[in-house]
Amino acid sequence: MKKNKVVIVGTGMVGMSYAYSMLNQGTCEELVLIDINKDRAHGEAIDLNHGLSFAPRKMKIYAGDYSDCKDAYIICITAGAVQLEGEKRLDLLHKNTKIMKSIIDEIKKSGFNGIILIATNPVDIMTYVAWKLSGLEKSKVIGSGTTLDSARLRYTLSEKLDVNPKDINAYVMGEHGDSQFVAWSYALCGVQPIYQIASRKESKIKFDELSSIEDEVKNIAYKIIECKNSTYYGIGMALTRITKAILENENSILTVSSYLDGQYGHEDVYIAVPSIVNKDGVREVTHLALDTTEKAKLDKSIDIMKENINKLDL
Amino acid sequence: MKKNKVVIVGTGMVGMSYAYSMLNQGTCEELVLIDINKDRAHGEAIDLNHGLSFAPRKMKIYAGDYSDCKDAYIICITAGAVQLEGEKRLDLLHKNTKIMKSIIDEIKKSGFNGIILIATNPVDIMTYVAWKLSGLEKSKVIGSGTTLDSARLRYTLSEKLDVNPKDINAYVMGEHGDSQFVAWSYALCGVQPIYQIASRKESKIKFDELSSIEDEVKNIAYKIIECKNSTYYGIGMALTRITKAILENENSILTVSSYLDGQYGHEDVYIAVPSIVNKDGVREVTHLALDTTEKAKLDKSIDIMKENINKLDL
Amino acid sequence: MKKNKVVIVGTGMVGMSYAYSMLNQGTCEELVLIDINKDRAHGEAIDLNHGLSFAPRKMKIYAGDYSDCKDAYIICITAGAVQLEGEKRLDLLHKNTKIMKSIIDEIKKSGFNGIILIATNPVDIMTYVAWKLSGLEKSKVIGSGTTLDSARLRYTLSEKLDVNPKDINAYVMGEHGDSQFVAWSYALCGVQPIYQIASRKESKIKFDELSSIEDEVKNIAYKIIECKNSTYYGIGMALTRITKAILENENSILTVSSYLDGQYGHEDVYIAVPSIVNKDGVREVTHLALDTTEKAKLDKSIDIMKENINKLDL
Amino acid sequence: MKKNKVVIVGTGMVGMSYAYSMLNQGTCEELVLIDINKDRAHGEAIDLNHGLSFAPRKMKIYAGDYSDCKDAYIICITAGAVQLEGEKRLDLLHKNTKIMKSIIDEIKKSGFNGIILIATNPVDIMTYVAWKLSGLEKSKVIGSGTTLDSARLRYTLSEKLDVNPKDINAYVMGEHGDSQFVAWSYALCGVQPIYQIASRKESKIKFDELSSIEDEVKNIAYKIIECKNSTYYGIGMALTRITKAILENENSILTVSSYLDGQYGHEDVYIAVPSIVNKDGVREVTHLALDTTEKAKLDKSIDIMKENINKLDL
Repeated sequence: MKKNKVVIVGTGMVGMSYAYSMLNQGTCEELVLIDINKDRAHGEAIDLNHGLSFAPRKMKIYAGDYSDCKDAYIICITAGAVQLEGEKRLDLLHKNTKIMKSIIDEIKKSGFNGIILIATNPVDIMTYVAWKLSGLEKSKVIGSGTTLDSARLRYTLSEKLDVNPKDINAYVMGEHGDSQFVAWSYALCGVQPIYQIASRKESKIKFDELSSIEDEVKNIAYKIIECKNSTYYGIGMALTRITKAILENENSILTVSSYLDGQYGHEDVYIAVPSIVNKDGVREVTHLALDTTEKAKLDKSIDIMKENINKLDL
Repeated sequence: MKKNKVVIVGTGMVGMSYAYSMLNQGTCEELVLIDINKDRAHGEAIDLNHGLSFAPRKMKIYAGDYSDCKDAYIICITAGAVQLEGEKRLDLLHKNTKIMKSIIDEIKKSGFNGIILIATNPVDIMTYVAWKLSGLEKSKVIGSGTTLDSARLRYTLSEKLDVNPKDINAYVMGEHGDSQFVAWSYALCGVQPIYQIASRKESKIKFDELSSIEDEVKNIAYKIIECKNSTYYGIGMALTRITKAILENENSILTVSSYLDGQYGHEDVYIAVPSIVNKDGVREVTHLALDTTEKAKLDKSIDIMKENINKLDL
Repeated sequence: MKKNKVVIVGTGMVGMSYAYSMLNQGTCEELVLIDINKDRAHGEAIDLNHGLSFAPRKMKIYAGDYSDCKDAYIICITAGAVQLEGEKRLDLLHKNTKIMKSIIDEIKKSGFNGIILIATNPVDIMTYVAWKLSGLEKSKVIGSGTTLDSARLRYTLSEKLDVNPKDINAYVMGEHGDSQFVAWSYALCGVQPIYQIASRKESKIKFDELSSIEDEVKNIAYKIIECKNSTYYGIGMALTRITKAILENENSILTVSSYLDGQYGHEDVYIAVPSIVNKDGVREVTHLALDTTEKAKLDKSIDIMKENINKLDL
Repeated sequence: MKKNKVVIVGTGMVGMSYAYSMLNQGTCEELVLIDINKDRAHGEAIDLNHGLSFAPRKMKIYAGDYSDCKDAYIICITAGAVQLEGEKRLDLLHKNTKIMKSIIDEIKKSGFNGIILIATNPVDIMTYVAWKLSGLEKSKVIGSGTTLDSARLRYTLSEKLDVNPKDINAYVMGEHGDSQFVAWSYALCGVQPIYQIASRKESKIKFDELSSIEDEVKNIAYKIIECKNSTYYGIGMALTRITKAILENENSILTVSSYLDGQYGHEDVYIAVPSIVNKDGVREVTHLALDTTEKAKLDKSIDIMKENINKLDL
């Protein structure tokens, strides 16, 4: 029997914000922390355990090693060199591919046969790398993709329109990085297209603001990094959200990084598109009939991913 | 109308772990972050806001200044110099008294009339300082006290006895620091005294282990600091727990740092004792008939607090 | 200070399913049950209180009378003659108007100045009656409207499309009754129009199924009544949802019954349209540019409401 | 792989209050309703499903039959003749034994190998019957026992002492019925013995009130039945609590009805004693050194159970 067990590889701020979020939300039963710095992982596990008396559910939390992956349901990889101020996500490519190889190798040895969730940047490429090396089914290796960017878009629009962010139905698609784009033709407040809202004279949002909103969402990570060196709380909760969708078999639509197998006219690449996520990973990539501009942006984003993948020796 | 609004002063790791815990648990409606580093507070607020789409409730989160304290229900002060490796909590005394003075001064100017929750170390003394300077009622200034230490004890005993930490009913009392002690004569697993359990031959816990458990709980912070430089997740959730007890008017018993006004034979001091916490702060300090050894430890702990308070110019 | 306090008038199965849902979800701090059968209300309060040890938050629950309305934040009226098998919702009109008059009269005497949430059927008309008699602002009297019908639609579509019901963004509008309709031109799975999905050859949903889905949603209450005499669990949770949107100041979009003041070309009527709900009640009625058929259905539904209102002596 | 799946046998008010509580708390992933009245079960499943849009987690809920038991983790049996006004719990004995036999027979045919949770009254005897007939391990058949009675005691004491019911640590033990008793020597407010509190002059609770509190707790069900014909909300949440302890592998201490195998000097009987509950059912019956009066009450309660069991032809 596969357990409601999550392994986090990498106990930096992203991995730990994810762990702490799961502790506070009661997302899983067993949580294992793995890090090359074993003391760090051990200290983090103790610190989390001290919160158990105040948590919504009993959990078993401990620092472990790769042998603990064997019966895990999800392994989330957050390990990797971090994105430094001024550094583009793609710059991290080669450093992190090497790290990913060593991790996947260890995971394979454990006999793991669950779902791998990748948060290491550049996430779309790292997800491809993890999949390629793991030998797992395409649907069982997932990247966090633009789940966070979509949440940033929802927050930004919710502030403009003064509604609950959960009532903004809108996606950032493509690379979790500079070539990402907003699928404006499918962006809604409740069920109402943002385009329709923006076209009204008295509206809280104007047509010509949309591209600056898109830019703001794309570049907000750089702004946060200026303020506090790195970003981790938003991504921590995005990872918890994806984890819940998997463990609770939700069939929820999330813009995770999914393998394209012909959808949107592309194949052999991982990229963030709205995907139906359940206990089996990505059950289905949904087909949005994008407008010409959006389709071109997606194509370009995918091209960049492929170009980068080709530079790697997998 | 006083709002379900919490202000955090100090956006270091303790303040932010508290903030992130509240976001994940949906503890309050409005959350304001104040820090002398305004960029930091601003960056943190943005990072938290990006998690709103995945949070259990809508919240309004922003970086603010002391004028935002006016209509807050709770102000939690976490600002202060941090406890460094090898440093005792009392060493921080003078540095943090000065910081506390400047903060309380600003809070008073705002017209605030709610509850102040202190997490800055040495917490029992800083709570006294905050109360003295604030002019607020004794019951409305509270320290985190040994809420965290009690949680550490509960976790440690739960591991030994293989039960849910929530079924361990046991308290660490006294200073949140080296003179703290476990009230063993009132420590229970469910309703069963630990003493009774330990006296059985085949028990999972032995009598002579108890003092080492007490030491472990007292010193575990130093161990965590060795591993990861500081501790913040446990305390973050302890602060959320206290906040929930206040905002939801729980009348829950927590070992917060409370003002003694004759109880346990002491007065004019703040120390951690089991206290009933509700919307008015500490409604009541409970009277435990401690055994002789425990009472001596409490007296000693209080003496240390008073000695230190006397060194201050308040 | 207005408290986080909810009063339920009417402890039949609808009122109690709402109360029990709030207890299980931890929606409010204080809950008062009022019923003409005081014993019934008293017994219900005891039964609920016995669940407190297992509830997510401390609550104060008791049987009360109209004097308890004074400092309530929300009064939810569920009292009224129930819809019998074969009976149309409008048949209840006269019986329940009389009951509503007597209740509102008592509420006014208490000095209540919060938000009234109506669940008594025919709900749109009863909401109008309650508003007219209460003297409260239009935005502060709300009907449950088609919140439940929209949930039924979301569930039915989610089963067809095999996605999480929370990813179905679609509304039933108009009367909570036989003249209701689905705003298909704004019905989406995630961000994808159902029309677009249904137009695909291989789709899980067909164009010509839509009207039968609409009928099923409209008539499912009759089917449940055949099976178990009345429906109450769905409406109980819908009322909890609306309550949470108010108490937590969510600015969420819900198809509650709102007062039209020119929107959709109508005025002086309550009808279910997507509305932004927050601590002030209905902050704003949203404007959907309905297609011709849908607009005609809304007009017709409103006409029926007005016709009925005119029959009343208010 | 055994699923996070619960089957409820009996969709009367107890079974449905349990189901609705789990829906509101998000306790399981899959929920099956079985009833001899298939229409009723079907109607209930539909009514619950309409709440999914407002529930904390995605669930799969449907009316089923015994073949659905095969891969369930828990089957909760609530079916049985209900306790009528004036009727003692033991009066139901023969009627419900017959019903239990027919249910267990069907469950066995399905190949079920999980945990059976009994709520049918007289619950301690029915649990024995279910165990005997099922052929399952002793630890895997559990009765709700005095979980509810303990919650009633905690509520009553919490009102007297003005603390959160969750801070009352006290148990009702023995039969879920007239021979039950409070283990006063182990009853605590926080960690403080009620005896110690009651012995103080100025206390909110008096020594000579204790027996009337015990009587009130024992007889409160009869009072509720007078008011509303039957009790179901408290027991619904108690069942959810036990279910959560099992599915989330909590190792929590609950006064479920457990099989005694020498503990407390008895064997071959089911009775409510504090028991550690986890994914395997009752992991361990805890040993409380009861005082002489309490021990005599437990013995008497067990004698009554055995006497009744002996009247049955198993």
